[in-house]
Amino acid sequence: MGDFTIQQMRQQALEIFNAGLKAVNPIEAIHRHVQLSDDALLIAGRRFELKTFERIFIVGAGKAVAPMAKALEDLLGERIASGVIVVKEGHGLPLKRVKICEGGHPVPDEGGVRGTDEILSLVTEAGATDLVICLISGGGSALLIAPSEGIGLKDKQEATKLLLACGANIHELNTVRKHLSRSKGGRLARASYPATVVSLILSDVVGDDLDVIGSGPTVPDSSNFQETEQILKGYEIWDDLPISIRNHIERGVNGEIEDTPKSDDRAFQRSSAVLVGTNLQAMLAASKQAEQLGYQPLILTTKVEGEAREVAKVHTAIVKEVLSSGNPISAPACVLFGGETTVTLQGDGKGGRNQEYALASALALEGQDHVVVLSAGTDGTDGPTDAAGAIADGASVARARKKGIDPQDYLRRNDSYNFFKHLDDHIITGPTRTNVMDIYMLLVS
Amino acid sequence: MGDFTIQQMRQQALEIFNAGLKAVNPIEAIHRHVQLSDDALLIAGRRFELKTFERIFIVGAGKAVAPMAKALEDLLGERIASGVIVVKEGHGLPLKRVKICEGGHPVPDEGGVRGTDEILSLVTEAGATDLVICLISGGGSALLIAPSEGIGLKDKQEATKLLLACGANIHELNTVRKHLSRSKGGRLARASYPATVVSLILSDVVGDDLDVIGSGPTVPDSSNFQETEQILKGYEIWDDLPISIRNHIERGVNGEIEDTPKSDDRAFQRSSAVLVGTNLQAMLAASKQAEQLGYQPLILTTKVEGEAREVAKVHTAIVKEVLSSGNPISAPACVLFGGETTVTLQGDGKGGRNQEYALASALALEGQDHVVVLSAGTDGTDGPTDAAGAIADGASVARARKKGIDPQDYLRRNDSYNFFKHLDDHIITGPTRTNVMDIYMLLVS
Repeated sequence: MGDFTIQQMRQQALEIFNAGLKAVNPIEAIHRHVQLSDDALLIAGRRFELKTFERIFIVGAGKAVAPMAKALEDLLGERIASGVIVVKEGHGLPLKRVKICEGGHPVPDEGGVRGTDEILSLVTEAGATDLVICLISGGGSALLIAPSEGIGLKDKQEATKLLLACGANIHELNTVRKHLSRSKGGRLARASYPATVVSLILSDVVGDDLDVIGSGPTVPDSSNFQETEQILKGYEIWDDLPISIRNHIERGVNGEIEDTPKSDDRAFQRSSAVLVGTNLQAMLAASKQAEQLGYQPLILTTKVEGEAREVAKVHTAIVKEVLSSGNPISAPACVLFGGETTVTLQGDGKGGRNQEYALASALALEGQDHVVVLSAGTDGTDGPTDAAGAIADGASVARARKKGIDPQDYLRRNDSYNFFKHLDDHIITGPTRTNVMDIYMLLVS
Repeated sequence: MGDFTIQQMRQQALEIFNAGLKAVNPIEAIHRHVQLSDDALLIAGRRFELKTFERIFIVGAGKAVAPMAKALEDLLGERIASGVIVVKEGHGLPLKRVKICEGGHPVPDEGGVRGTDEILSLVTEAGATDLVICLISGGGSALLIAPSEGIGLKDKQEATKLLLACGANIHELNTVRKHLSRSKGGRLARASYPATVVSLILSDVVGDDLDVIGSGPTVPDSSNFQETEQILKGYEIWDDLPISIRNHIERGVNGEIEDTPKSDDRAFQRSSAVLVGTNLQAMLAASKQAEQLGYQPLILTTKVEGEAREVAKVHTAIVKEVLSSGNPISAPACVLFGGETTVTLQGDGKGGRNQEYALASALALEGQDHVVVLSAGTDGTDGPTDAAGAIADGASVARARKKGIDPQDYLRRNDSYNFFKHLDDHIITGPTRTNVMDIYMLLVS
C-alpha cells in the first residue's frame, strides 16, 4: 500500500472525476451516438436513410439540450429544416437553425408554456416523410410544459402542490402530471405522428427509466385517467382541486378525452429512444481513467439513494475493508458509486448532498492513511452553493481541528460548504451543461 | 439470469448463512486455531512446548466462552490444572475442570464481580512456569467486572450512566471504564505476569480492535488517567460523580495508582492474542459455500455500521446494478456485508436491526425477480425477539399486501418482527453460542 502520496491521489481523483464528466458532456454524448455517413444518419447503430426524409426537425427540453442541439447542428447543418428547444434561463447557446426558448425551472412558467406550444405546433405540422429528433435531459419535465386544454398553468401547479403536501410518491406525481398535459406521457410522440421520431436522452434519474426522464414525452405511458382520479381521491384532495382539473379528469375517466398513448399506440411504431448519457457511462469512463492511473476500479452501483451521511458510512466501510483485508478488491483501488443522495436538513448551515457526503466520509475515515474521497454533482452544482462537491482524505478532520473547526458540529448543522471552504477543498467546475446525477469516489492506495 | 427459482435461492441463502455460522462456532473456532501435537500446543501456528509449563489455567469471560472452554477441555483434558470463566446466565455448559460463574449482562452484577475476583486470584497465583489461556468473546466487558479498589459496582455504573447520557463516544467510554477496573485495559495480563498468557478472542466489534473487545483485558492500553479526568471534566459531570470515583482518578493522576499497562510493559512480553473468530472468517466461509452453489461471491465489507433502513437502501442499490449492468459482478451473484447496523426507534413495534434491514430491503427490491435478501445476527438473536433475522425476496412486499399488510406502515412502526411473522419468513436458529455480529446477504440469479 501507499503507492501514491495523498497529494498525488487528490490530483488523480480529480482526473478520474473529469474523465467521467467528459464522457457525459452533451456534445460528446451526441457525437458518440449520432454519426453521419454519406447518405444516412447512424443513431446508436441504427440507420436512417436521409433520402427518405423530406425535413429534419429538432425539438426538446431540458437544461442540457442547447449543447445537444449544437452538436446536431454541427453534424447536420442545413439538413435541419428548423427546430425549437426550451432551456432554463442562462442555459442557451448561439444556434443557427434551432430556436431557443427560455422557461422556468424548477417552477414552470409561461415562457415554458409558450416554448412548448411552439414545439407542439412544429411536430403537429410534421408529416410521414419528416424526421423529428427530440432532445430530452434533466429539467425537461418543468420546461416542457403544456397544460391540457382548458387548464391554466396555475391550476396545474396548484394540483401538484396539493399532491406533494400529501407525501405522494414520484410514480403518483408523474401519473397525475401526465394526465394534465399535452406533451408528457407519450403525448409529444403522438402529436408527432406520422413523422418518425428519434429521442436522444440524457438521464438524470436513478434507474434511467425512459418514462420518468422529463416525464417521458415520447415513450408509452402505463397509467390512466382512472388511476389519476383514484390517487387524487385517495389522498382526499379531490374536493380542493381547481374545478378545471376535476372537469378534465372526469372527462378523461368518461372517455371524452383520449388517454395517454399506451405501448400499442401506432405513434410508437415510428418512435424510438436512445440514452446518450447516463451515470453508468460516466462511471465507465471514470473507471477506465482510474485503471490508466494504476488503480483497480470497481463500479458498485449507479443507483445510490438515501441520506447522504448514512450512505457515506456504508461506502467508507467498504474502503476500510479494502485496507484491512483486501476485500472486495486490493489496493490501489478506485471504488465508484453513482446516483443521488438526499439531505434531511437539521441545521441552518450551507451545503449540498455531495459536500455533506464528503464531510461524513472524512469523519468516518479519520486517521486512515492512503484514502481519498471525492463526491460531486455532474451538473457542477451541489445544493445552493457554487461548488460541485468536495474532496477529502484521512487527514482532513485533523487539519480542520487544527484550525479550530469542529467537524461534527459542521455536520450537525449541515454546514459542509463552510467546512470545506476553510480547508480550501471545494470542487469547482462551474455549470457543466450536463447532469447524470452524482459521482461518489473512494481512492485507496 | 434466472438460473435458480426463488425457492431454490431462499434455500441456498440459508445454506450460505449456515456455512458462515459454522465457521465461527466457538468449538470449531478453537479447534481450527489450537492443535495438540505430542509434546506441544500449536496455537495459530505458534509452538508452546508443554514440558516447559507446569500448569495450564483457563480463564475468560463472554457469552461464547463456555463452548470455547469445552473445546479446550476436549483437547487438553487433564493437562488443564484448573480454570474459571464468567458467562451470561443460561450460557453455561457441563465442564470438567473449568468452573463456570454466571454474571449479569448487559448490566453487570455481583455474580460477575465474584467470578472476576476468582479469575484474578487464579492468574495472580500463576507463576513463570504456568500458561494462562484467556478466552474472550462478546459480552466480556460486562462479565469481566472488577471495580478498582475502593469503588463499588454501583458507583462505577453511576459513572458510566452519566457518561452515556452526555453522548460520549465508545473511545471515551472505554477510557473511563479501563481506569476504574482491575481487569480491563491490559490489567488482567499484568495480574498474570510472570505467567505466559495466550488470549483466544472471538470478535463481536466492528474492526476487531483487540483493545475494544471485552475492553481489552490482556492487551496494552493507550489511554491514561489524565485523559480520563479530562473526559469527565470536559462533559462537566466531574462534580456529579461518586466521591470514590473522583478520589480514585485523582490518585491515578497524581501517580499514586499505577496506570493501565502500555505496550512496553513487561507483561506483554509474555502475552499474545489470537483472533479465533471474526466476521471476516464467517464471510469467507459463506463466500466459499456460495461459490460451491454456483454463485460468484463478493465480500464488500465486514465493517457495516449505520441506520439499518438506510444501509439497506445502499446495499440494494448495488444488487439493482448487478441486475441492470452486471456491475460490480454478474449474476448469479452473492453479495455479502458484515457488521452491525443500528435502529433509531420511531414506533412501538417489535423487531431487530436485521429484520428491519430485511424489511427495508424487501421494499427497495419490490417487483425485482431473481433476488433474495437475508439478514441475521450470528448470535441467533435480533433485538428483543426469538428470531435471528429474516429472509425476503422481490415478491415479499406483494405477498404481504395480499394479506392486507402495509409494509411501509410496519417499517414506520419498527414492527419488522410481526411483518415477517405474517409471511413466515423469520430465521430461527436459537442461541448459537457465538457472536461475530451480523451477516447481510443479497443473492441474485
